[in-house]
Amino acid sequence: MSQVFSLISEPSGQIDEPSSAVARFGADAPLLMDAGIALGPWQIAYQTYGTLNPDRSNAVLICHALTGDQHVANVHPVTGKPGWWETMVGPGRPVDTDRFFVICANVIGGCMGTTGPASTNPATGRPYALDFPVVTIRDMVRSQAALLDRLGIDSLFCVAGGSMGGMQVLQWAASYPDRVFAALPIATAARHSAQNIAFHEVGRQAVMADPDWRRGRYQEEGARPSKGLAVARMGAHITYLSELALHRKFGRSFQDRSAPTFSFDADFQIESYLRHQGMAFVERFDANSYLYVTRAMDYFDLAGEHGDVLAIAFRGTKTRFCVISFTSDWLFPTSDSRAVMHALNAAGASVGFVEIESDKGHDAFLLDEPELLAACRGFIDAAARARGLP
Amino acid sequence: MSQVFSLISEPSGQIDEPSSAVARFGADAPLLMDAGIALGPWQIAYQTYGTLNPDRSNAVLICHALTGDQHVANVHPVTGKPGWWETMVGPGRPVDTDRFFVICANVIGGCMGTTGPASTNPATGRPYALDFPVVTIRDMVRSQAALLDRLGIDSLFCVAGGSMGGMQVLQWAASYPDRVFAALPIATAARHSAQNIAFHEVGRQAVMADPDWRRGRYQEEGARPSKGLAVARMGAHITYLSELALHRKFGRSFQDRSAPTFSFDADFQIESYLRHQGMAFVERFDANSYLYVTRAMDYFDLAGEHGDVLAIAFRGTKTRFCVISFTSDWLFPTSDSRAVMHALNAAGASVGFVEIESDKGHDAFLLDEPELLAACRGFIDAAARARGLP
Repeated sequence: MSQVFSLISEPSGQIDEPSSAVARFGADAPLLMDAGIALGPWQIAYQTYGTLNPDRSNAVLICHALTGDQHVANVHPVTGKPGWWETMVGPGRPVDTDRFFVICANVIGGCMGTTGPASTNPATGRPYALDFPVVTIRDMVRSQAALLDRLGIDSLFCVAGGSMGGMQVLQWAASYPDRVFAALPIATAARHSAQNIAFHEVGRQAVMADPDWRRGRYQEEGARPSKGLAVARMGAHITYLSELALHRKFGRSFQDRSAPTFSFDADFQIESYLRHQGMAFVERFDANSYLYVTRAMDYFDLAGEHGDVLAIAFRGTKTRFCVISFTSDWLFPTSDSRAVMHALNAAGASVGFVEIESDKGHDAFLLDEPELLAACRGFIDAAARARGLP
Repeated sequence: MSQVFSLISEPSGQIDEPSSAVARFGADAPLLMDAGIALGPWQIAYQTYGTLNPDRSNAVLICHALTGDQHVANVHPVTGKPGWWETMVGPGRPVDTDRFFVICANVIGGCMGTTGPASTNPATGRPYALDFPVVTIRDMVRSQAALLDRLGIDSLFCVAGGSMGGMQVLQWAASYPDRVFAALPIATAARHSAQNIAFHEVGRQAVMADPDWRRGRYQEEGARPSKGLAVARMGAHITYLSELALHRKFGRSFQDRSAPTFSFDADFQIESYLRHQGMAFVERFDANSYLYVTRAMDYFDLAGEHGDVLAIAFRGTKTRFCVISFTSDWLFPTSDSRAVMHALNAAGASVGFVEIESDKGHDAFLLDEPELLAACRGFIDAAARARGLP
């Protein structure tokens, strides 16, 4: 039941009634969160593509990254842009929607229809804002498991994702080993590094420094901390690219001029590019969600849940893994992926590891990188044969 | 004439009447700037240490980095902290104030007594703010040359500096080859990279997004864009350290607690460290100066002045160079220093190159790194012998 939207709507219009399917859970079926809160009622917004087979054995869960959402392979209802991973997911793609039933859900704490800080707090009738409990990667995975229960899917053929999506993949394999046949974590880590926490903290401080943030209550007060959120996005965007990619794409080229203006205008192309990235982002994302979802990544430490021994997280796993990294990714460098692979090896898991030569940085996982797509296709096809899927 | 200050003063008190020597130039002796402006009257604040010899041949100019100032080897009049390079400059140090006459001046565009955006515009009687002309690294060097003229120093025995200070060193050697006997550029580049421009642009946007910036007129309106400037500093500070240094120093350790608070408090030590860095910085630095000095670095492209051939900048030079980089510096990586060395080789210059093994990132140049200090001492001592200095 692939969906295409002809109307482009406001991001705020997606919060309670998103342009996608929604599973709603009452106060009697709360989401039990790591923060010690039983959240309910709550809802999770999702998209599906393809058809579930009679055995219910061909389901693939795609987990999205920090600023992604459920619209992995359809036109985005707010921006009108193509799905964020159409190179990977679709008819004839490595995650082939002609063969698999693909599910992608907005994360808890997000702003595209799954309950988050912009949602209405039933206790007050006002948006949660910072009264929303801090979420974790494990909470995201718990909410997805509840969705699968609702859809009647016991076991996933595959769970796949990059960056924060890869964190969810690892958490899935650790939390629900019997529900994951194959796992494909890409450009990710089993714990967020000090440097990455630092970058996130700067972004959060940029949002919270904006007086229009109003201590998180901007929705009620008719404000939006757009400047702060744009600064946060600009800073983060640099970390998604490699130095070489920036150099090749922009170098020190001037924007629409042949010489410096000796001003603070966007003289350099890289400056106007970043400003555009910042402005485009605030059109589609909620500032408080940015705080919550970055925080979830900071807290992620899968080994920490298991006495600081990552291998224990995967003990006895029957899941088959393919771990993928990119040579120029300095946000989640290959050493992070190698640590995951070593833990999986120590746990006796079936694991393949591919480091892809790319100069495009962290964002390579979202791009049309033939080596990435070939590696994923090979892993998924082999896993499908092992699962007896056509 | 080393100075020690017993009173700690407000940063704003340093702008016109700094706690250091000042050379003042009238409207009849303007600073001719790259922006096409003749700036006058203007002034340059500086410190000196040691004694100029009768030949006037033992002068060393130290050039400071983005947020440094003239207080290289004395207690800072605003913060009360030691000079920013006391490991390098002082009695018995590599730049030995018992042997050399050491000069360090605040850059044009700065906020510690040299004319900058916080200074009074004589045409209006109000602070320049953004009416101050955009400055370049070459303008900084021109202003220093004017200071040396005033001090009666024709030729520098040595000019040394790290980061933006190193840019000035390279510019000195290119602009005034006959005035520089030895040049010591550390952790620097001959052109600012796209990635570095990008980081600076995010910092500037953070400052300008702060409503207390007041389009640059915050001084007159009794405001200070402290939050924006703190965010800018936090982001920049990450780039001064290496991932490994952050990991070793902070890792994922919690601050004064044993478990996460599930909040947006500074749970992690790295978060409270960054917040402290941001807050401490705004106490001593002017937000508009931050815009101007980062812009000067962005514009720096020494090859660009010479038909994009860096070697031409150094053609026929008699200056002896020692170029130093650090293995873990990702802001000014070794490849930048190697490009400088190659150009110097192509120009037939006398050049040594030292890449220092360090995991402390860009800031290593400011730290007590024995290998750095030994390399500088060796280079300076050899140059002193060649110059016939005792």
